[in-house]
Amino acid sequence: MSPSVLIGIDLGGTNVRVGAVSRQGEVLAWAEAPIEASRGPQAGLQRISGLIEQVLAETRGGALMGIGMGATGPIDRQRGSIQNPYTLPTWEDVPIVQPLRERFGVPVALENDADAAALGEAWVGAGRDRERVLMVTVGTGIGSAFIYRGEVYRGVGGAHPEAGHLVLDMNGPPCYCGARGCWESLAAGPAIARRAQALAQGAPTIMLDLAGGRLESIDARVVVMAAQAGDALAQRVVQETAAYLALGLVNLLIAFLPDVVILGGGVMRAYPVFAPYLHSMIKRHSVVVPLDAVQLEVARLGVQAGAVGAAYAALKLIKGG
Amino acid sequence: MSPSVLIGIDLGGTNVRVGAVSRQGEVLAWAEAPIEASRGPQAGLQRISGLIEQVLAETRGGALMGIGMGATGPIDRQRGSIQNPYTLPTWEDVPIVQPLRERFGVPVALENDADAAALGEAWVGAGRDRERVLMVTVGTGIGSAFIYRGEVYRGVGGAHPEAGHLVLDMNGPPCYCGARGCWESLAAGPAIARRAQALAQGAPTIMLDLAGGRLESIDARVVVMAAQAGDALAQRVVQETAAYLALGLVNLLIAFLPDVVILGGGVMRAYPVFAPYLHSMIKRHSVVVPLDAVQLEVARLGVQAGAVGAAYAALKLIKGG
Repeated sequence: MSPSVLIGIDLGGTNVRVGAVSRQGEVLAWAEAPIEASRGPQAGLQRISGLIEQVLAETRGGALMGIGMGATGPIDRQRGSIQNPYTLPTWEDVPIVQPLRERFGVPVALENDADAAALGEAWVGAGRDRERVLMVTVGTGIGSAFIYRGEVYRGVGGAHPEAGHLVLDMNGPPCYCGARGCWESLAAGPAIARRAQALAQGAPTIMLDLAGGRLESIDARVVVMAAQAGDALAQRVVQETAAYLALGLVNLLIAFLPDVVILGGGVMRAYPVFAPYLHSMIKRHSVVVPLDAVQLEVARLGVQAGAVGAAYAALKLIKGG
Repeated sequence: MSPSVLIGIDLGGTNVRVGAVSRQGEVLAWAEAPIEASRGPQAGLQRISGLIEQVLAETRGGALMGIGMGATGPIDRQRGSIQNPYTLPTWEDVPIVQPLRERFGVPVALENDADAAALGEAWVGAGRDRERVLMVTVGTGIGSAFIYRGEVYRGVGGAHPEAGHLVLDMNGPPCYCGARGCWESLAAGPAIARRAQALAQGAPTIMLDLAGGRLESIDARVVVMAAQAGDALAQRVVQETAAYLALGLVNLLIAFLPDVVILGGGVMRAYPVFAPYLHSMIKRHSVVVPLDAVQLEVARLGVQAGAVGAAYAALKLIKGG
């Protein structure tokens, strides 16, 4: 008997990644390609179907059980469509579940990308066998997802809570959402770059050299490199950013008290640089609430988390979960 | 056949309230008395047992199915004991589940008081038939409880999340927990009194008259009365407090996106005074996350919420929930 196989798809604004995944969460075959959203959703769907066929072929006759997709939101889970002209230009109200179901003849699950990545980590990554898994992704923005007893926690009307817009400073910098002092406007990549660029003007710092002499090229990656090399200004930026990272985390931990919080995203690749500040603030806030019982983990599945979690969503759908 | 009856107990620092409750959540009989904690836990247990017998007798032969207690925390649910020498002097590590079970021969459930009140509201009060019910109680402190699909949400190790210690201002006033700018240090009763007393020094305000001329007697109740009477300083205190109340609420709503948030506690008896500010800030933050889909409700069960919710906890225990 040929082994049964799940397909997990991670659809981002730039690339689409497709994995053939076993029922145990192993990635059996993998393929990725640019999505080139501007060529239109029909071309995109063709490309996705091609990648699915390619990875299925590599499993040498694995029997396809189901397909899951984690897509850069907003998505409409009820209607099974993607409504994202922001990061997927021309993809406004694109049905995705039905075409894939018709073409491959199996159930198709759709999740947003943050939820899919968290499902992957909760299934076979840093959140394995934990009842309450909170995932926080720090990159260009801050995303969050909460997996409770193996299921995505959803808010009113099925909406996805967005911890990136926790308000940490009523008088803070304006956020694109219209509010001030949102977590992601204080602690994500662009905030790090903004802080560093302001400090680097006219002051001695290797950040400018690392950025090829262009102030506007100082980004989070440059700041972390400079801080690790001992640059004082860069270390100040790290410290200021870490305070806000820690503050947002502390507030989420107080609200959810998860077993584990998994940190992912580009900025969190520099986790060791931020970790001492995070641990210190969490400890300080553990008097009334046992925040120090919450484990901090770095994401383990890397770029495969979304596809693996999407495959898990498909498995849950098949089982009627 | 005699109707089956549940007993719900609400054990506070001052009074104990006992209700005989039907399986549908109706209060059939009610009794309350001072707990006089300093007389010791044995005397307290005697009093509680007496009240149980009293309300049971009033149900004219109702068959007792189970007993639930909501107690002012900290409690140890695993061991079924109360560990609260703070608001129940002498009640340090007092077994409560076992003695009641032995005396009455039925299953006994133990919850903390915030969770019990929220269970009550979720069962037959303002959160009836809702999947995600968040309750926030504003009084001397700020308490919170989250009921998800009819069950108390518990954090790591069974711990109770405490939203009163959300950090809303890193540079805010010190909180007894050791941190600064905790929600309850900015928006609960004592913060209202502190703000009002500071403003009332030497400035014309009816707050001082309402407090019998004693600055230190200006409390949250006085502030609300004066604000409703048009006193400008009192209205300023209301406005400043409401901003922090709203900020904490917005952050909780962003994290949980509940169907309904139920507001209870002494300060929230003045809900109409605070409501416009709460609604306005929630609206402002509804751009990326549908906060405006969350219903705001005032608690409906009043002082009976805790006992009714404790009865529900007993019902769940019997059903094996």
